[in-house]
Amino acid sequence: MTRIVQLRRGILEKNDEYAASLRARFTSAGVTVSNWVSSPGTGKTALLEAVLVAAGDRGVAAGALVGDCATDNDARRLARSGAPVRQIVTESMCHLEADMVGKHLDDVDLAGLDLLVIENVGNLVCPTAYDLGEDLRVALLSVTEGEDKPAKYPALFHSADVVVITKMDIADAVEWDRPAAVAALTAVNPTAPVLFTSARTGAGVDELLDLLRSTRPREAS
Amino acid sequence: MTRIVQLRRGILEKNDEYAASLRARFTSAGVTVSNWVSSPGTGKTALLEAVLVAAGDRGVAAGALVGDCATDNDARRLARSGAPVRQIVTESMCHLEADMVGKHLDDVDLAGLDLLVIENVGNLVCPTAYDLGEDLRVALLSVTEGEDKPAKYPALFHSADVVVITKMDIADAVEWDRPAAVAALTAVNPTAPVLFTSARTGAGVDELLDLLRSTRPREAS
Repeated sequence: MTRIVQLRRGILEKNDEYAASLRARFTSAGVTVSNWVSSPGTGKTALLEAVLVAAGDRGVAAGALVGDCATDNDARRLARSGAPVRQIVTESMCHLEADMVGKHLDDVDLAGLDLLVIENVGNLVCPTAYDLGEDLRVALLSVTEGEDKPAKYPALFHSADVVVITKMDIADAVEWDRPAAVAALTAVNPTAPVLFTSARTGAGVDELLDLLRSTRPREAS
Repeated sequence: MTRIVQLRRGILEKNDEYAASLRARFTSAGVTVSNWVSSPGTGKTALLEAVLVAAGDRGVAAGALVGDCATDNDARRLARSGAPVRQIVTESMCHLEADMVGKHLDDVDLAGLDLLVIENVGNLVCPTAYDLGEDLRVALLSVTEGEDKPAKYPALFHSADVVVITKMDIADAVEWDRPAAVAALTAVNPTAPVLFTSARTGAGVDELLDLLRSTRPREAS
């Protein structure tokens, strides 16, 4: 196993280097970048669509880069918002890496954007170790997923700068236990703000957009 | 990347060898084994609990092996059914491998079981390539996850012997589009039977138990 651990460490170090250069590129363009990570089916794309539409309504120039193992369904769906959207098809890859992000931004006018959202592949484990040069890592969790997910997948939730609860409109229907969910989140990450949202009703969408906008691009290290 | 591809191939070949020996062990013990794979939050554990209780009621000896990155929450929850349950804590590992399964079965009386369910780590990508010696691979998908998940994660759904839809009790509340979901499944896997279940109402639980029981242990190759 030692060879594999060494190889993996080498991949992560290369990713960190590439992510640092991406972060410098984002900072110099003045675009705030968030990396959205969740389980498949949490509703990342639906919420992202709502955020892109809200951004358009408020004159905020927002774009998105969406990762999936297969299909460009999400990019086509998000393009309805009018925002610039690029799809990364990862094939059998279970997460995005910084160089994949960089390559897909070559034809994007980053300086013309205020916000860029990177929607990672739906996966609560593998994306955790890969910095994409983002200013904010956003972990999303839906009310249908079980309140103890942060305890079961602690690494991701620990690494999040913001936690977004999705599908609040069906919280009652699924008997979601809000205190239990918040307690599980706080146990692994006591500092990240938690937003409660619904793409269907629009709850929390403006608040999320405000939070994404108020984050200044991180200084390149 | 070639070294990584070669290493990965080596890992998969070793896993296949180990899985073949596990399959022989299961066949000789006369236990039917299924490997349940889904996104985190699909409701694998809730449905498994319902299946274990139904098995107990019907005099079927069933056991479970549950994988999670952290916590033994699921094993403790499932133990309420009275069935023998073992937890595999995978740490940062995003899937189960055959040797992990084998090691956790050393103190389990396989010959005393009719059914063994292996609940994989919640992940729609990484478990796909790892044979665990199972007779049946069961892919689960909840009505809250978006009807196009099979198109976005085709490898897993293509490899499934059975597809189980979960959380049917809230299908209307989330406006689940059944024809769209079935069409997406059929496109990647035209032959696997599809069961519609709800752990909360018990719908489909007996049907799933019947299906798991009717599968004879696969002949060791």
